[in-house]
Amino acid sequence: MEHSSSSSNRNNDQVSPVASLYNGIIIVIDLIFLFIKFWFRTFVELYESFTTKERDVSNDIILITGTGHGIGKELALQYSALGATIVCWDINEQLNLETVKLIKSKGGKAHGYTVDVTNREKVLETGNKVLTEVGDITILINNAGIMPQHEMLKHTEGEIRKVFEINTIAHCWMFQAFLPKMIENNKGHIVALSSIAGIVGFKNLVPYCGSKFAVRGMMEALAEEMRLYSNGTSKIQFTTVYPYMVDTGLCKRVKIRFENFLRLLKPAEVAAGIISAQRRGISELTVPRYMFFLNSFLRNFPAASSLLVRDFFDSGIESDM
Amino acid sequence: MEHSSSSSNRNNDQVSPVASLYNGIIIVIDLIFLFIKFWFRTFVELYESFTTKERDVSNDIILITGTGHGIGKELALQYSALGATIVCWDINEQLNLETVKLIKSKGGKAHGYTVDVTNREKVLETGNKVLTEVGDITILINNAGIMPQHEMLKHTEGEIRKVFEINTIAHCWMFQAFLPKMIENNKGHIVALSSIAGIVGFKNLVPYCGSKFAVRGMMEALAEEMRLYSNGTSKIQFTTVYPYMVDTGLCKRVKIRFENFLRLLKPAEVAAGIISAQRRGISELTVPRYMFFLNSFLRNFPAASSLLVRDFFDSGIESDM
Repeated sequence: MEHSSSSSNRNNDQVSPVASLYNGIIIVIDLIFLFIKFWFRTFVELYESFTTKERDVSNDIILITGTGHGIGKELALQYSALGATIVCWDINEQLNLETVKLIKSKGGKAHGYTVDVTNREKVLETGNKVLTEVGDITILINNAGIMPQHEMLKHTEGEIRKVFEINTIAHCWMFQAFLPKMIENNKGHIVALSSIAGIVGFKNLVPYCGSKFAVRGMMEALAEEMRLYSNGTSKIQFTTVYPYMVDTGLCKRVKIRFENFLRLLKPAEVAAGIISAQRRGISELTVPRYMFFLNSFLRNFPAASSLLVRDFFDSGIESDM
Repeated sequence: MEHSSSSSNRNNDQVSPVASLYNGIIIVIDLIFLFIKFWFRTFVELYESFTTKERDVSNDIILITGTGHGIGKELALQYSALGATIVCWDINEQLNLETVKLIKSKGGKAHGYTVDVTNREKVLETGNKVLTEVGDITILINNAGIMPQHEMLKHTEGEIRKVFEINTIAHCWMFQAFLPKMIENNKGHIVALSSIAGIVGFKNLVPYCGSKFAVRGMMEALAEEMRLYSNGTSKIQFTTVYPYMVDTGLCKRVKIRFENFLRLLKPAEVAAGIISAQRRGISELTVPRYMFFLNSFLRNFPAASSLLVRDFFDSGIESDM
């Protein structure tokens, strides 16, 4: 069971006292530098979060999945209004074509493709088509998702598999279709739609929460992979968004105590939040934004304590059954 | 797009000043009480985390998945040594039988079943068999998992689907097989094996991180669902464990800067940590435990700052290719 590490030589039992002392001093100095760099970086990031301007996207080619309705459609319309070329992907051909038409009627540039994002082969094939027909995707927005809402025991096998196929695994196929070109160009931005249910667990949403927590994990791991494999030279950016409950038809029934504080968001508002975050290069944010900090803060306390705060706000999603 | 909430009457535009003042005072009083309860609960939980004794498990029937090797096997052996009856599930018949035999040779009680946990029908069917042949499961440990380690772009379609099927979706089938009896008896404990890669993203582990973050989300959502559907009377407990890299053959290549601080754990150590957490009813913990608090703390800072801490410890999993 013993693991022999080939990358380390610190396991030597015969270290002289001088060498130990030397090692100890080096580590202490390293720790002091870490402390200084940590706070310096924190203040720089804070400062930048207030001062960074939204970058121009008029030359971008933006692929969005799930453009047939809701947040995806809003993202397509709002990005188009900023001058970007939009590549609309949806499984529903008719709704998708309506979005494309709407963009074109306003003088925007849009291309529609009918794709089931859970079909890897189809994703790679259509991805190649997009690369030749439209050009290199500079911003990829993995938005398509479904949200069955009922007790764990009432979820069907098909529903559970579909939640993970669409909300989580499909992101992998999209990475495999578009990341190679981004790495080649050392340019690109991947945006993923998670959910407030991707940082907090809610009743009636057990598989959905799983699928959305997973998005956070994959995005964090992928960003880290790009950073490390490029020795920090990668310019590919990553943004994960956690919207609060959105009125897209996905949330069938919500209860909210403080209407003004925690009201149901409109797709247009969420889309605007996502676009602003992407343009400013923010890596993670909730919409509304304060929820992210509230969640991070409460995670320092026992679960039972943060449940008190949750119960105080008394909001949740009811079963659709 | 307007959502009309049936459960709220605070959206009224015609509120008199007296009523507003009254509402305001009520909310302020509620907030003060929340503040007091929050800190009281926090101190109680802290106190209990030091004083809670490990409960007796000698009358428990404990089902563990993935008992053929590694942490699952260790859990089976150690729980058996505490007098519990062990139900061993593994897809590998031979390895599983060896574990059962080993337990029996030491005078323990064990029952072996060959099951592919990704096959829902088989899980429900074998679950029913266990309930009649052995008895009600009082502790369920979802441990079975796989861990492919390479770049996102080198993961195959089959690998990615399998990671989610085994590490995440299978938990749903196990819930559906054993939760109904636990609800009926209002007694039971579900333990899930996540991973340090379920709270932090690592390179070479993009799908794996997704699958393990998902476990956290599902467990948190399910615990919340049980609490709310029972109006707080549910006695079913939930424990999610996030072990650091374990030497089970899953981690093929690791690099670690501080050997003693971040050394590879042995399955026996991790199993001991899990059993102690379960017996004390802890809802979430990493093995070693300090990592959980370190992660929660660092999540309050910008990602770039916590990356400095990560780079300082300089550990990660290398590709197996």
